[in-house]
Amino acid sequence: MVAAAPMSTLLLIASSASDASAKTPGKLQGRTIMFKSNSLHSVERFVRASPKVNGTKPDMHADLSGLGKTVQDGMIFCQNFNVRSYETGADGNASIETLMNYFQETALCHVKTVGLLGDGFGSTPEMYKRNLIWVVTKMQVIVDRYPTWDDVVQVDTWVAASGKNGMRRDWVVRDSNTGVTLTRASSQWVMLHKETRKLAKMPDEVREEIGGYFVDSPPVVDEDSRKLSELTDDNADNVRTGLTPRWSDLDLNQHVNNVKYVGWILECVPLPILETRELAGITLEYRRECMMDSVVRSLTSVVSNGVGDLASSGKVECQHLLQLQTGPVIVKGRTDWRPKKSNSEVSKI
Amino acid sequence: MVAAAPMSTLLLIASSASDASAKTPGKLQGRTIMFKSNSLHSVERFVRASPKVNGTKPDMHADLSGLGKTVQDGMIFCQNFNVRSYETGADGNASIETLMNYFQETALCHVKTVGLLGDGFGSTPEMYKRNLIWVVTKMQVIVDRYPTWDDVVQVDTWVAASGKNGMRRDWVVRDSNTGVTLTRASSQWVMLHKETRKLAKMPDEVREEIGGYFVDSPPVVDEDSRKLSELTDDNADNVRTGLTPRWSDLDLNQHVNNVKYVGWILECVPLPILETRELAGITLEYRRECMMDSVVRSLTSVVSNGVGDLASSGKVECQHLLQLQTGPVIVKGRTDWRPKKSNSEVSKI
Repeated sequence: MVAAAPMSTLLLIASSASDASAKTPGKLQGRTIMFKSNSLHSVERFVRASPKVNGTKPDMHADLSGLGKTVQDGMIFCQNFNVRSYETGADGNASIETLMNYFQETALCHVKTVGLLGDGFGSTPEMYKRNLIWVVTKMQVIVDRYPTWDDVVQVDTWVAASGKNGMRRDWVVRDSNTGVTLTRASSQWVMLHKETRKLAKMPDEVREEIGGYFVDSPPVVDEDSRKLSELTDDNADNVRTGLTPRWSDLDLNQHVNNVKYVGWILECVPLPILETRELAGITLEYRRECMMDSVVRSLTSVVSNGVGDLASSGKVECQHLLQLQTGPVIVKGRTDWRPKKSNSEVSKI
Repeated sequence: MVAAAPMSTLLLIASSASDASAKTPGKLQGRTIMFKSNSLHSVERFVRASPKVNGTKPDMHADLSGLGKTVQDGMIFCQNFNVRSYETGADGNASIETLMNYFQETALCHVKTVGLLGDGFGSTPEMYKRNLIWVVTKMQVIVDRYPTWDDVVQVDTWVAASGKNGMRRDWVVRDSNTGVTLTRASSQWVMLHKETRKLAKMPDEVREEIGGYFVDSPPVVDEDSRKLSELTDDNADNVRTGLTPRWSDLDLNQHVNNVKYVGWILECVPLPILETRELAGITLEYRRECMMDSVVRSLTSVVSNGVGDLASSGKVECQHLLQLQTGPVIVKGRTDWRPKKSNSEVSKI
């Protein structure tokens, strides 16, 4: 999935990959906060229950300060977000970018709160010493319902092993008042050398720092293994060319932040879809990073229905491709769209 | 300054314009929360002192919940913001858009908290009945220092009369820990009929709702009355054409949110300025609104120094113009740039 070549970057993250031993508490060693098998079991129960909590009050560990806190020996990070007016869009709903921004914030705060934030954008101290950074390779988000202005949502996040050198990070977003699950997301991460942009194995020292924070639980979103299509001018319904990063799209790594790619993808979704439907889910596979001087093309094909069929009430699926104007793929993606809820349900502003 | 034609819109606001009588407490009548001359005097003292508070602890009325609260009988709204990672840019600083987003949020929360948020994006109940909306005509922001990730800033905001039918809204942003003033801003607003897009006089019923919330104080940023130049292809140093709104640029009024214009302006600032300097201040005069199907041009001229002179340590001033591709002006602006602080001062991430 990931070539040893320049690739996507930028949503930096809390913990890290581990080999199979990370799943066995007894084999862990040298970590800052000691692993306890009892706490692991309770984390597992918590995590496994997370996506199923509907209609009940959220976890009693909810963050009341809005600054976030860890529970379960640092294994889970919980933070409340008061949705702000500028984080909502034309329909009054928080945007998908807003939710993904909350994911980035909680990931970084998780690393920071457990004392592992090195002098970089999400790297641990041992990673920073070795010039290693985290890069996201896959992100899947399922949105059951969008919060609106002034809603308070509780975001819970944790990490898990993913293969020998990778890591998974999951999120569950709940309405903090009712406990109803609004959104679930799961993501995959690998380590990259900052200078060479090559994939790196996880050094033992990094594994010792972070491996103990992994929980042993299935992802909150089952991995979507359907192949994403490679769009071309011939099979795309919509093509936008000449997209260039704004200065404000860059993050501390001087790269386009991975959340910003979603804006370019949505720019190329046919307007009748944006006007009549809401995004129910998104899958993104990141292949290559994008810098300030990149020039980008965004291609979309509407696969479930023809664009002319958008007056119907059915669901729509789109395939997406972001590529450098010179050809190389930046991101492949899939979006699912469902009919919008009525206005009275949508907005309370 | 404002023609009776379609014009800028969208940063919706807390209170409203008033005639001269609004400055005289004894003449006010029919308001929801009664005006008290004693409280006005203390508000005046508070407001006048606000931009001068440096190096002292912030006001004791500071909002500890992060949800905001009014003080002085609703005259001043205070809200704490924990700066989030995704609200900072390539240099680790909160962006100017982030600060302006905080301004929008506190304005709306101010109206809401005093019970005057009608069923619209900042309109009062009496405005909503009459199909009236607030539109911003001028915004001036002075940034002494930018906060970074995890800083907590306290934003205080209040409104004042501005002519017979206009309103002024001011903001002061402080470091909530030290009390040092980071940013000051002042803005002008008028009322527009939502259907005809014509300027409207303030109805007596609206004046009764909101006039009593005006404070009698000078603006925290002295009005910049220097004429902004009208740029053309001939006298601009940089021109970007074919800019189109993203779906996420729209707000509840289905218009491009006024904060988004700043992104288009910064897109046209020469890269050497963005890389070596930070924005010290911005003045924006809004003339016309911009919709989803608008195509926009962004023009910049560097007036204090030639672009080739950017290696020097001096300040730089830019003039800006956003216009529809068909000609009409959307926004005129001026930005001031100063050399960046050293890295150690800039970022703590």
